[in-house]
Amino acid sequence: MHILHTQPKADGFFMPAEFAPHDGCIMIWPERSDSWRNGAYAARNAFVKIAAAIAASEEVTMLVSNQQYETARAMLPPEVRLVECTTDDAWARDTAPTFVLHPDGRRRGIDWGFNAWGGLTDGLYFPWDNDNHVARKVCDLFRCDCYSMRDFILEGGSIHSDGEGTILTTEACLLSKGRNPQMTKAEITEMLCDCLGAKTVIWLPRGIYQDETNEHVDNICAFTEPGKVVLAWTDDKSDPQYALSQACLDVLEQATDAKGRHIQVQKLPIPAKPVCMTEEECMGLDFWDGEPTRTPGERLAASYVNFYISNKSVIVPQFDDPMDAVAIKILQNCFPTRNIVPIAAREILIGGGNIHCITQQIPKN
Amino acid sequence: MHILHTQPKADGFFMPAEFAPHDGCIMIWPERSDSWRNGAYAARNAFVKIAAAIAASEEVTMLVSNQQYETARAMLPPEVRLVECTTDDAWARDTAPTFVLHPDGRRRGIDWGFNAWGGLTDGLYFPWDNDNHVARKVCDLFRCDCYSMRDFILEGGSIHSDGEGTILTTEACLLSKGRNPQMTKAEITEMLCDCLGAKTVIWLPRGIYQDETNEHVDNICAFTEPGKVVLAWTDDKSDPQYALSQACLDVLEQATDAKGRHIQVQKLPIPAKPVCMTEEECMGLDFWDGEPTRTPGERLAASYVNFYISNKSVIVPQFDDPMDAVAIKILQNCFPTRNIVPIAAREILIGGGNIHCITQQIPKN
Repeated sequence: MHILHTQPKADGFFMPAEFAPHDGCIMIWPERSDSWRNGAYAARNAFVKIAAAIAASEEVTMLVSNQQYETARAMLPPEVRLVECTTDDAWARDTAPTFVLHPDGRRRGIDWGFNAWGGLTDGLYFPWDNDNHVARKVCDLFRCDCYSMRDFILEGGSIHSDGEGTILTTEACLLSKGRNPQMTKAEITEMLCDCLGAKTVIWLPRGIYQDETNEHVDNICAFTEPGKVVLAWTDDKSDPQYALSQACLDVLEQATDAKGRHIQVQKLPIPAKPVCMTEEECMGLDFWDGEPTRTPGERLAASYVNFYISNKSVIVPQFDDPMDAVAIKILQNCFPTRNIVPIAAREILIGGGNIHCITQQIPKN
Repeated sequence: MHILHTQPKADGFFMPAEFAPHDGCIMIWPERSDSWRNGAYAARNAFVKIAAAIAASEEVTMLVSNQQYETARAMLPPEVRLVECTTDDAWARDTAPTFVLHPDGRRRGIDWGFNAWGGLTDGLYFPWDNDNHVARKVCDLFRCDCYSMRDFILEGGSIHSDGEGTILTTEACLLSKGRNPQMTKAEITEMLCDCLGAKTVIWLPRGIYQDETNEHVDNICAFTEPGKVVLAWTDDKSDPQYALSQACLDVLEQATDAKGRHIQVQKLPIPAKPVCMTEEECMGLDFWDGEPTRTPGERLAASYVNFYISNKSVIVPQFDDPMDAVAIKILQNCFPTRNIVPIAAREILIGGGNIHCITQQIPKN
């Protein structure tokens, strides 16, 4: 693996859309007991189901600590490959590399700086040094050369690409004080275009209410094909999510993508009932630094937008909510050639993210 | 990866010879400071040269601890892949799987039990649990199904295969009390044949004087082609190695291989001057369990037989000795189609083995 200090766009590379063909997917086995309740026991079952669903149409590599290797091996189906890798948590979307392709078939990875979603300003754990080394190791594993962009803080969950020159992101996250406060919005726009081989960045103002990543785009809005997105939505004006989703809709209705298209927005409801932590769930989480990780009644950032698009399926989180079936139906219409795989995701949500957050696609080259 | 409890021979698998084509080679980055002097600084340079030489004609994967990843990445050439794996030391020959092939092209690995060359009886370190998990993880990494043979203690360095049904091993090692004392020689013979798809085991009595692996075969004798071996040799009857090599020669001269051939023996000299630890070298080794790892003047088990056969080269240890050039000349005659790559190996020898001990081939399937 070469470590590169040039820029992907200048080298002719771009980030494909998630709905383009994949060679595989990277995940990380959940372990830390202040993120995953009851020693991650319940979360593991959800991770296993998701890995198996993805492995039905692409090669899944699950990173795992030395300590958890045998347990993970016993729980996962044989077609999921396990590779040891020390991490600080299980958010492959944010710590694995963003892969870019060249039209000639070369594939490279981008190793962004990672500081646990805000570093010492408003990050979610400390230290995060193991996580910050994951991307480079994954590039090495797949024999991909690796762009070193460690001076620029970015998580994979804060960007979406349509594969045709358009990037979706949120201001709440990318302009947050804990990431790249020395850069202007224009400079960040340029950096995203240079790194992802893009021409246009659509800046949504906000994300999902209470999303502790500073509102990653992948929880509120996703491309389903070029020129088309799904947007997390509620019609309930008394819900704090309403204003956030409305602000995004306003931007999307005015936006033009890199190909000059207006964006078609498909609204995707949020769960009808807020998903909140129970007292029992809170009891199952280890403390960190003297404070409880979550408190009873706390609302979690539940969203059906946090799905993963595999080669043949869309893996969609479910919350035991009346909107579960509505979301499935809408997504089936958005992805008519793919199989919709609903998976109960409350245990992943308790960890702070969802199915898209724990996966990272490897585009086919 | 499936974990298998059947036997390779019954499934139609066999162990190819090292001189058959490879897909690649596994190595492990040296780190423990009671094996490698001066914090492994000098050994690393030797490992880097060996990895680079092998990588010239096959894909090298170097396993490395989380702590050493960035250092190893900086020192190794880009074509060597680094993959994280927790180990107890750097002996890939003994802890990585022994790969077996099926005529239909399938490749599987064997996960032998590993107890640090003798367990609590006369093993070389404690604990060895990380090493004992390496083989399974490597099979997983290469998406090979894995035979679980953990109840049978064996190291890859204690066997050689001619790829045509004949296995070479030593009684000193395989009948040692620290490995499988409950098994008879006949039972071990059968086990080797069942696991390696072989018909005949040639039991050499001894190995190299002072070899702390209980005299692994890979330090004293190796196939150079079917029916032909090199044997570590000295004509000096006062050297303690003389009787050991003579005893092996006696067996080889009487032996018949699986194809009914007599074995042609090419003598390969040991270094003219015994290779012994200096006081300065001993000072650079950390203590373990209250005892020094090595003592000044201690003779090391230096042998030119401990080479690695890559697709296009033979990587041969050198000891700054008059016999270095003689060994190169003999091996060039034995391997006329391969390039001989001599590498200064004193720093590896101090660790307790040599080039063959730190490498494990992945046969081409």
